[in-house]
Amino acid sequence: MIVRVVGTGLLGTSIALGLQDAAREGDAVQVLLADPSPTALALARDLGAGEIDPGGLTPDVIVVAAPPDVTAEVVLAELAHHPDATVTDVASVKTQVLDAVLAGGGDVTRYVGGHPMAGRERSGAVAARGDLFLGRPWAICASPKADRARVGAVRELAVRLGAQVVAMDADEHDAAVALVSHMPQVLSSLVAARLQEAGEEAVGIAGQGVRDVTRIAASDPALWAQILAANAAPVAGVLRALRADLDGVITALDDLAEESPGHPARGARAGIARAVAAGNEGRSRLPGKHGSRPIVYATLTVAVPDEPGSLARLFADIGEAGVNIEELALEHAPGRAVGLVELSVLPPARPGLEQALARHGWHVVG
Amino acid sequence: MIVRVVGTGLLGTSIALGLQDAAREGDAVQVLLADPSPTALALARDLGAGEIDPGGLTPDVIVVAAPPDVTAEVVLAELAHHPDATVTDVASVKTQVLDAVLAGGGDVTRYVGGHPMAGRERSGAVAARGDLFLGRPWAICASPKADRARVGAVRELAVRLGAQVVAMDADEHDAAVALVSHMPQVLSSLVAARLQEAGEEAVGIAGQGVRDVTRIAASDPALWAQILAANAAPVAGVLRALRADLDGVITALDDLAEESPGHPARGARAGIARAVAAGNEGRSRLPGKHGSRPIVYATLTVAVPDEPGSLARLFADIGEAGVNIEELALEHAPGRAVGLVELSVLPPARPGLEQALARHGWHVVG
Repeated sequence: MIVRVVGTGLLGTSIALGLQDAAREGDAVQVLLADPSPTALALARDLGAGEIDPGGLTPDVIVVAAPPDVTAEVVLAELAHHPDATVTDVASVKTQVLDAVLAGGGDVTRYVGGHPMAGRERSGAVAARGDLFLGRPWAICASPKADRARVGAVRELAVRLGAQVVAMDADEHDAAVALVSHMPQVLSSLVAARLQEAGEEAVGIAGQGVRDVTRIAASDPALWAQILAANAAPVAGVLRALRADLDGVITALDDLAEESPGHPARGARAGIARAVAAGNEGRSRLPGKHGSRPIVYATLTVAVPDEPGSLARLFADIGEAGVNIEELALEHAPGRAVGLVELSVLPPARPGLEQALARHGWHVVG
Repeated sequence: MIVRVVGTGLLGTSIALGLQDAAREGDAVQVLLADPSPTALALARDLGAGEIDPGGLTPDVIVVAAPPDVTAEVVLAELAHHPDATVTDVASVKTQVLDAVLAGGGDVTRYVGGHPMAGRERSGAVAARGDLFLGRPWAICASPKADRARVGAVRELAVRLGAQVVAMDADEHDAAVALVSHMPQVLSSLVAARLQEAGEEAVGIAGQGVRDVTRIAASDPALWAQILAANAAPVAGVLRALRADLDGVITALDDLAEESPGHPARGARAGIARAVAAGNEGRSRLPGKHGSRPIVYATLTVAVPDEPGSLARLFADIGEAGVNIEELALEHAPGRAVGLVELSVLPPARPGLEQALARHGWHVVG
């Protein structure tokens, strides 16, 4: 199979490297590279991602990994120049690309949109990894006109790279990422923006909660402006629904701020409790580890000295107890030479683990 | 020193247990317990938290660990019944308590408000731990009328429990928690509430970002209604400022959704990029580990088999390399029998660690 990768940035080069890994494990894959920048192209080749496309070969699959705002244009050009090839892309918003391919008269029987849910905080070929997609969801958004065998070829490519394929329509995909990715990104940024005005004391008492809520607020502004612009209507719709809920909470708080014996804030506390309960409900919809149904893990928090080797001792003792850790997090411990490791385990495993750790002298904090 | 703890729930019992630990290490502390519920009181005693207050002794410090909505009333009663004692509390909103103590004619030279930034998802004495406060911030909010020696006594109590004391006015405290705790809690709940309407495919492509943003959305609705009601005006103020930013983003997205060649959405992309950049700025204000200035760690992601002992092997190899892990997180890998562990280390330590892990056969993914 010949795969042509157009665009040797982070995603394109990672795809090419991943295919090279598969080839070394016995898959018959030849990878051809293309990029408008000769420097970027040579860099990807030198990193072992494949050979520079000499032209004249007939690729079976073409992966367009160009920046989002030129993806549709490049897809159209590739469909035209390679009349037998299946063409896919990796842009994070799908309707806009499909509409442009249709409007541009592209052969939509051969175009199958894709979106690997993987990325890194660094960009470019130097940050690329062949296993970037390992265990990550990869949405495949075939239009109803796409040829089934060609959809299968794109699916096979994603599977070969270790990804978990999720099939959905372009519209469904864009609505889904508006909800599970774009809206949370906007709110994380807006929460973090408020911290600009926080004093030293305020940030000094910040706990793990606000850190978690604002972690993705460290994302790239230019990239996100491009992504949100491409999915503007679905994101605006979700944000509008959230704003209506926010207005309800603000109104309830205003009532409570003005509450007096002669002026009770009837229903305000219940309204706030309902908003928090709705959050409980929504949070519980996120699947647990490995895509299975949500599992409620038992947690166990251990205080560990902040020094090399202490985590090794801890995990050696956990390993000896034969317990599998489902999730873990190391918490900040402001001003103290101690870290708090939160371990999530299947509930039946918790008592035994706690005993084993206590026996080894660990401080189980909770 | 005699400490009377009034209220033997999670926080009161944890404080009592922590003081018992300190007593075993040589501190001369006698702990007296009180609670309106005889059952709760006997349980705390049986857990080793202290003796049931027989009456007739003169406590030096009284810790009121009652539910938020009765804290002020209990503080007033304790000030009246124990005319020589210093009285503190642990309620998470401070102005309301101080105002009520002043309005009730309490001796404010002897009242020193406090707020340990610690909690658990479980409540009650059975969930209590003597080291619950280890390494956590503990706000001490003395009014200007409080006696300095009594402020010192409360500070000493918090330090004895291993907490990191942060001194601030009650107003400052309430504004600070509105910003770094209450507002993020509300937004996490509102983001999670939107997921109630997410389809199976949408939650199937949910990544780590939305999980982080909504982690604290699993909190107790009744407790949060009480906390938010007690700090209504400051929280409403912060939420109103956030709503203004949200309106700006929605307007920009609406412009983009209606954009056409004859109707360009001037400035909309820049407006969105500015909102994300403001989030970058605010996020960078959160202090790094151990209360120090923010440190940018280098990260390294390792794929580990999802089986007992694999984390132990990983951390043994890290320990052998002599590298200290500053932060760590285990990521979900939907549908695959592999976990991704993200390790944060001081930047100079990264190359050596990557080499050491590769030498031991670990898959360094990024």
